[in-house]
Order: sequence, then structure tokens, then C-alpha cells
Amino acid sequence: MSEAILSTRTAEGRHDLVLNRPDKFNALSESVLAALKAELSHIAADDGARVVVISGAGKAFCAGHDLAEMQADRRLDAYRQLFAACTEVMEAITALPVPVIARVHGVATAAGCQLVGACDLAVASETARFAVSGINVGLFCSTPAVALSRNVPAKRAFEMLVTGKFIDARTAADWGLVNTVAAPEDLDVAVDDLVATIVAKNPDAIRRGKALFHAQRERPRREAYDLACEVMAQNMMDENTDEGINAFLEKRPPVWRKN
Amino acid sequence: MSEAILSTRTAEGRHDLVLNRPDKFNALSESVLAALKAELSHIAADDGARVVVISGAGKAFCAGHDLAEMQADRRLDAYRQLFAACTEVMEAITALPVPVIARVHGVATAAGCQLVGACDLAVASETARFAVSGINVGLFCSTPAVALSRNVPAKRAFEMLVTGKFIDARTAADWGLVNTVAAPEDLDVAVDDLVATIVAKNPDAIRRGKALFHAQRERPRREAYDLACEVMAQNMMDENTDEGINAFLEKRPPVWRKN
Amino acid sequence: MSEAILSTRTAEGRHDLVLNRPDKFNALSESVLAALKAELSHIAADDGARVVVISGAGKAFCAGHDLAEMQADRRLDAYRQLFAACTEVMEAITALPVPVIARVHGVATAAGCQLVGACDLAVASETARFAVSGINVGLFCSTPAVALSRNVPAKRAFEMLVTGKFIDARTAADWGLVNTVAAPEDLDVAVDDLVATIVAKNPDAIRRGKALFHAQRERPRREAYDLACEVMAQNMMDENTDEGINAFLEKRPPVWRKN
Repeated sequence: MSEAILSTRTAEGRHDLVLNRPDKFNALSESVLAALKAELSHIAADDGARVVVISGAGKAFCAGHDLAEMQADRRLDAYRQLFAACTEVMEAITALPVPVIARVHGVATAAGCQLVGACDLAVASETARFAVSGINVGLFCSTPAVALSRNVPAKRAFEMLVTGKFIDARTAADWGLVNTVAAPEDLDVAVDDLVATIVAKNPDAIRRGKALFHAQRERPRREAYDLACEVMAQNMMDENTDEGINAFLEKRPPVWRKN
Repeated sequence: MSEAILSTRTAEGRHDLVLNRPDKFNALSESVLAALKAELSHIAADDGARVVVISGAGKAFCAGHDLAEMQADRRLDAYRQLFAACTEVMEAITALPVPVIARVHGVATAAGCQLVGACDLAVASETARFAVSGINVGLFCSTPAVALSRNVPAKRAFEMLVTGKFIDARTAADWGLVNTVAAPEDLDVAVDDLVATIVAKNPDAIRRGKALFHAQRERPRREAYDLACEVMAQNMMDENTDEGINAFLEKRPPVWRKN
Repeated sequence: MSEAILSTRTAEGRHDLVLNRPDKFNALSESVLAALKAELSHIAADDGARVVVISGAGKAFCAGHDLAEMQADRRLDAYRQLFAACTEVMEAITALPVPVIARVHGVATAAGCQLVGACDLAVASETARFAVSGINVGLFCSTPAVALSRNVPAKRAFEMLVTGKFIDARTAADWGLVNTVAAPEDLDVAVDDLVATIVAKNPDAIRRGKALFHAQRERPRREAYDLACEVMAQNMMDENTDEGINAFLEKRPPVWRKN
């Protein structure tokens, strides 16, 4: 039995989603997108979820859309549906109440590079490479451009989009597309460390904070502040926050109530 | 006598505001925020003001909000008022007609890191460190996120917010949160140099320019250009600008009329 | 005979525009702006255009506005017209259906630095230097600030604007204002390589993509995605894209139909 997405959950609320079509370089076919969407909806309903890690099975992280599948049905409406389905997945990552980490061990191209951009955090192996390479087959990576240009300065994003060129993991970190680069053998430790750091925090605050972070980015500064003030005031009323501040003032570790 | 904010002004219009609660790591208590707001209002009314430098007394630059004070009155409305007061200070820095420089010699955490982000410019000592560490006590730094994410790329800002980790001064400069890093013994020289450079300019143009810079950032590009065209045309009508251009064409130094 | 703008076109659709007032450091006088606007309109109407390269004759790339000309007619309306004309040129670069590359071999100051910012891509020689130096003559670079602050993080842009200081080519690349830095003797090869890479792509996709890239940057993320989905679906219907994907699946080079 082989499923498009392998999904696991630890007792502490870490969800792992593994893109599992290694023979297709984990291309985002319609069925993969549907499975990914379903898994994200499942996690969104899990009150004990704390963090999500997205990775890829086999050699590649994700090679973007499934070009063979796309050629099999060349109707405009089919493409509209496909890109809408892909957008729903990317937006579901942003809308998810907990942080989503991309674990990038190999190539991330086109919608695969977009997936890295859409995640809240990204940890890359030195062997990872990134490109929005649709232009090489005559298809400008328009939807990947949305995610890429919200992570990387304009001229760099535009160059990647019109040339299709690869950047390596160090360059991706230097440009802000990924947070951390690790040696291949240290990649899982680097991801685990980031997970452990996040899972050690007050879950309520992480959930409030992720939603606020994305909401405020889209607003003018003054509106962003008004929203942030209300979120932060509500955050202060949390039982865990009361405990966290008391623990700090009493110089002891906090004990979080978990959902 | 000990005041929350030490305020001085030089003959050339440099205002220094020193956060002066070193035993509290210059935490932004209600009284400190009120004093800071009053000082900024005072400077806004000073037609001869040219530049402001904000620094901290003692070991830290600023450790953010005063957690002990916040625990003493755990009503939602009290928190709303506190964060609104803090926002007023941050927005007053942006609204001030002259550039504001953060002089960061030590730790700048939570709302202290936000304060660095809210300033127009920042000069840091190699000993400075930056974090939005509220998450460590269970409080997501929502209002600091507004300033931080307008200085630093999204994934870096998000990582700092959910991990609470510190970054050093070199990293802060690399990421765009501060302009310059100096050895501790050279910090004041670096600040003085930046002040001297700004004070040597046409004061009218600096005032027009700071207001335009912040106004245009919030607008779509075409609207930003329309606004900038009008500000620049008005700037050309200034007596000092006439003098400045004539001096340039005549290859002599300009003599500015000061307010 | 000496024209303000030297314009050439290759058989493959590369347009070169050379700012040709070397004795004036290629200052953007009214006549230069008018000539540049006319050339850009001409290129916009050329269905076979593929890419534009803007460069400068003589020692400088472009020194910004023509200050002597500006002093000759000190009426507010004259300045409004001048900055509006300059904005039309900058906006015409963004609106042009094909990528525009700045080839920067020398100083790019004030509106000259803005011109680099307004181009989609920029290749600089190690000898290039960049400043928004109007402040040195009492004139804040308000319209250049619009382009600069859309390429470079806020504190860096603000520092350049209030100090007028120069940054070198490596710093400009590090900050995202230019894509590539080359030794002076390799500058044309670097530009030619970038041109060749772009010209080898499906022309339809580059045209759709450039328009989409700029349109989506100005929109909230969800609206940006909706726009990008439609553009990408339409892009899939192109004859060249069909060919490009088939060629990829058949492991052969694509043969583009050119306009």
C-alpha cells in the first residue's frame, strides 16, 4: 500500500506530513493536493496539535505540479481548478493554527519552492536547491511568485522567475527563503531542535501569535498595531500566560496547562 | 532625584532621551511610557529639533514591558490601555518630524526590540543583543511583531517570535534591524557621526523627507509616486534648497538658514 | 549629430537604450526624459521586443535630475511637471511587457539610483556606486525613495536618504538593489548572459509573468493568488507552453513560436 501523503502524530502534538510520490519527485498532482488539503484540515481540528513538519520522500523535496497530468486535460477550466486547489493548500498552511516547518532535503522547484515559501519556517539541508523553473517549460511560475516575493527581495525573486535558475541552500538562507541550513546528516536534528523549542512554549500564545503575525502583515501599520494590541491584551488573560509571567518573576520554570 | 527619562538638548537641536530605570533594565512601565510620550510631544513642538537619540542607562537598552507591574492588575482593560499607550509611543516616533536613532548598547527585548524597530535608524554596539522573547513567559510579542516584520524578512521575524531566541548585533545588521555595528568603545562616536551627518543637511528637507518616507511606504506604488512628486516639488520651493543647489552649481558649501 | 538617447535593436528583440549626455553625467533633463519616454513607448508597441538594456555613455550611469535646468525655472508647476514626467518614465519601465535590465558601470545617484530601482533587473560593475544624494543639495530624494524602499529594507533606505552616502556595488547586491556584480571587463558578458537566458524562454510566458509579478506585489496575498491563478491558467493555454511541456516530457529542447 502506498499513500500520497504519509501522516504521523506524536503524543506531544507534532504532525509529520511526508509527500510520498518519490518516483514523481513528489509532484503535486490533483490527488496529492487533495490528500494534503485533507491532512491539513484534520490537523486544524486537532486541539492538541502543536507543530507540523512537511517533508518529501526520496531524492527530491517537491518538483511542483505534475506536468504529465496537466497535459492530459488541456482545458482552461481544468487549470483554473488545479491552481485553485493548489492555492487552497498554500492558504491552509497559513491559516493553520500552529507553525508549519518545511524540511527541505533536496530540490524544491516551482510549486515545490512555493510550498517552502508558504510554510512559516524552513530548515534546509546543504543539498537542497531551489528554483521557480516553470519558465523553462514555457510556464511562468505565477502562483509561486506570490509566495516567493513575500519571502525574498523583488529583484532576486524576479531573476529567479525569468531565468529559472537554481539557488543553493546557503543563498536561500541569505535571502530569507529558509531559516537554517544544516549538513545532510544534521538535518533531522535541526528540525527536531526547532520543533522542541516551539513545543516548549505556551500553546495558546503560539496559536494567537501565528494568526496575528499573518493578519498584521497585510494591513497598514496603524491597523496592524490596533489588531496586535487586542490580541496581546487577550493573550495576557490566558491562564498559561499568568503562570508564565509568575514563573519568570519567581525564577522557576513555567508549567503549562495543555489543551 | 531620579527621573524615568533623562532628557537633554544641544544648541544644534540634538535631543537625547535616556531610558533611566537601570535597576529594571529600563522596562517600559506605564510611567516610563507616559514620560517618553511627553518628551516626544515636547520635541515635536521644538522647531529647532534636528535629531533624537534614544538610549538606555545601565546594562540593558530596554527589556520591554514591566511584567511585575502587569501582574499587579490583571484586567483586560488595563492591558488594552497599556498596549495602546505603548503603541502611541512607537507611532509618535514615526510621526516625529525629525529622525530618531536608537543607540543600542545592551539587550533589547520584546517591546525594547520593538523600540529599535520603530526608530528610523539604529546603531548597535557589538555587545547588543535582540529578541522578541515574550513567548518565553507565554506572551507572544504581538505588538513587537508589527515593528519587527517591517524591518526583517518574514521567516526570520516569525522564527524570532516563536522561539524567543536572541540574535547578536552583526546578525541584526545583516537582517536590516540595525544600520551599523560598532565596538563598544566606538558606539558613541558612531552615533555622533550619524548625528553630525544628518545635522549638516537642510533641516526642511529632512523634515519633509521623513514624513514622506513613512507615508509612501504604506501606499501602492503609483499613489506613493504621486505623493512623492508633490512633496519633492514643494521641497524645491524651499529657500534652503535654492541655496543648496546654487552652492552645488557654484562648487561651494551651502549655508543653510535654520529655523 | 548627438541624440539624448541612443537606441538600437537586435534581430532577436533586444533593445538597448543608452543615456547619451556624458558631459552631463547623463542627467535626466526634460528632453532626456521625453526621449526616454518615447523610446519606451516605441518598444511597448514592438511585438517582437524581448528585453531592454538601459546603460549610460561616458563615466557615469546617471546622475539624476539636471540641477542647472531646474534652477532656470523655479516655478512650483514646473517642478510638478518635471517630477510627473520622471514618474511616467519609471512607471513605463514597470508597465513595459518585457524585462528591463539596468547595466550600471558608474555612479547612479538620485533619480539615477531610482532608475536602477525601477528596472526589473540590474547588473553592476564593481566600479558602480549608488546614492540618493539629493539631500546634499537640500532636496530629499522623495521620488527615488519610492523605488529604493521597494528594493531595500527600510532602515537602509532611510539611512541612504538622510545621509546621501554612497554604497558600493557589492553592498548594493547584498541589499537587493542589484542582482549581479561583475568585474568592469566582464560587465557586458554578464549582461549578455542574462539577456541570452531570458531570450531563450517562451516570450508569451515572460510577458504574462512580468505583468503578473508587478500586479500581485501590490495586492493582499489572497487577491494576489486569485490573480496569479488566472494568469497561470491562461498561460497553460498558450501554444508555446503546450510545446514546452511536451518537449520536457519527451526530453528534447522546445521550439518556441515567436511573435
